[in-house]
Amino acid sequence: MSDSVAQKFADFFPTLSNDILAHLKTINIPVDAFNWLDRMMNYNVPGGKMNRGLSVHDTYAALVGRPLTEDEVTKAFVLGWTVEWLQAFFLVADDIMDRSITRRGQPCWYKNPEVGNFAINDSFALESAIYILLKKYFRTEAYYVDLLELMLEVTSQTVFGQLVDLITAPEDNHNIELFSMERYQWIIQYKTAYYSFYLPVAFAMLMNGMSPDNPAFKIAEKILLEMGQYFQATDDYLDCYADPEVLGKIGTDIQDNKCSWLANRALQLFTPEQKERFAADYGKNDPEAIARVKALYNEIDLEAQFRAYEQESYDKINAMIAEVPAETINPEIFTIFLRKIFKRKK
Amino acid sequence: MSDSVAQKFADFFPTLSNDILAHLKTINIPVDAFNWLDRMMNYNVPGGKMNRGLSVHDTYAALVGRPLTEDEVTKAFVLGWTVEWLQAFFLVADDIMDRSITRRGQPCWYKNPEVGNFAINDSFALESAIYILLKKYFRTEAYYVDLLELMLEVTSQTVFGQLVDLITAPEDNHNIELFSMERYQWIIQYKTAYYSFYLPVAFAMLMNGMSPDNPAFKIAEKILLEMGQYFQATDDYLDCYADPEVLGKIGTDIQDNKCSWLANRALQLFTPEQKERFAADYGKNDPEAIARVKALYNEIDLEAQFRAYEQESYDKINAMIAEVPAETINPEIFTIFLRKIFKRKK
Repeated sequence: MSDSVAQKFADFFPTLSNDILAHLKTINIPVDAFNWLDRMMNYNVPGGKMNRGLSVHDTYAALVGRPLTEDEVTKAFVLGWTVEWLQAFFLVADDIMDRSITRRGQPCWYKNPEVGNFAINDSFALESAIYILLKKYFRTEAYYVDLLELMLEVTSQTVFGQLVDLITAPEDNHNIELFSMERYQWIIQYKTAYYSFYLPVAFAMLMNGMSPDNPAFKIAEKILLEMGQYFQATDDYLDCYADPEVLGKIGTDIQDNKCSWLANRALQLFTPEQKERFAADYGKNDPEAIARVKALYNEIDLEAQFRAYEQESYDKINAMIAEVPAETINPEIFTIFLRKIFKRKK
Repeated sequence: MSDSVAQKFADFFPTLSNDILAHLKTINIPVDAFNWLDRMMNYNVPGGKMNRGLSVHDTYAALVGRPLTEDEVTKAFVLGWTVEWLQAFFLVADDIMDRSITRRGQPCWYKNPEVGNFAINDSFALESAIYILLKKYFRTEAYYVDLLELMLEVTSQTVFGQLVDLITAPEDNHNIELFSMERYQWIIQYKTAYYSFYLPVAFAMLMNGMSPDNPAFKIAEKILLEMGQYFQATDDYLDCYADPEVLGKIGTDIQDNKCSWLANRALQLFTPEQKERFAADYGKNDPEAIARVKALYNEIDLEAQFRAYEQESYDKINAMIAEVPAETINPEIFTIFLRKIFKRKK
């Protein structure tokens, strides 16, 4: 059942990219630009795990607690895909800023020789597509303006999160003095948690007719941001400790000077002498330096530290869910999420 | 009087940048990011000619035909500044894509060594600021959703215009075969005219309580897009023919391979032999090649061609203004604009 929804969701992408293309026809865009945007969207929007997009549907289904009508499925899919479009907008741009090489098993969009920095404008076009879709499918809904405001606000949150991430660990000016667990948590909340965890659920709540003033939004935000923290910490943990065969990639956070959960937790535990050794090796693309950082992590048993955090975070989130006041929101929408992300291996 | 409004408009910028900074405080952004955004906004948003921003006020004043209240001035200034913020968003990104060196007498933002490609994310932050301001000042207005839709739509139009411009004349693949007057006009309409001419007027109309379904919007759009065409053609003319002392810069459209009004008009008039010579020299950063292109322009008396177009366009716009049906919209709002741009010298 769940798998078939995932398949239906994936299959819905061409409907939406065709909506954008139809819009482009109405403005008589020259044919080479039409073909460019068609290829660009196909290259960058589908192909991810689509968990974010799908969760609008799953959350909405849990909220209403009955089989969805065809119109409801369509609307939940559209909102879900706008989350995927938003992510594509950020990834296309982030890959330029991070000088990344590949994404989802293909060269990053900007690495295509005919694209280059034109990818900046393409990222804007991906963002614009979101509002063309929202207008087409939701223009007449009472909650249309709430959808716009939410999408715009989450976009700005992600942009501010990305800024802090960028200036915390610039490529050519390594300075772990800027690292701190508090700063790390701020970055994750803004750069990742709002758009990945809060946005899909808040979309489903708006679609369910809930007013943005409803206290359920604040409750959901608090719980989902906590889950976002846990999710990203796991990501950072897996980057270093997962079997690359299972993970599907080889982690590079250490040599990339990433302000990761592991680095920040380690800095809380290191002696001054350990910190000095860490500062000397972190962010260097040198196998021996990387091995020494990993050895330092082992000296403080960082893996066990993560396991302890994981259990703590899981207990904390469950306690938050247990405290959700009856009649504000069905707590099942949170447990659905938590089940998907707890103790994942990749 | 008009000058003092311009001064008041310019002086209003710190109020709005402080609104953004106050917003950043509410989300507890780290202080280095706060300072970064403060500097980034000050660097990129003010300092232009501010004609676009001011014209929201001037148009609104002409529409209501009486002295404005303080609240109306504030609202018109806010909308005007969002147009300037929108322009800053595009210019910061365009300068990266065009590899520009200076802008408004200072290095382009991305050329600052600590900025580089982070400017991409900064351009997103400039866009986000628009919606923070619209929310703060217009959230409770009946036309709030219309402001959002208009700003979003004009953004997408500009993005699509920029795309066509980029792929028409890529730096390393000169091909004047793609040039055509029709394509030129499409680019100008989308890349420049919507945001520079239509947006400020449409903002003023919405602020005046006019519904977006009001036929006056289509009338205004048609006239203002025509003015945008004329404005850009003049820009292209001045780039080649103006006295650099008066213009304040030395034109570079020929060596930059720009799909300009001059190039497209010339291509309509050249013999096959002239076209061949043109193709050989256009887009080359070589003083002799540039001089040969200018000589080719003189062979067909392109300056007189522009003067003829100028008169034709002026007559056409005046005829359109004369035909505006009584009781749809005060045609004076268009003549205000036309006076400002007709036969300008810089």
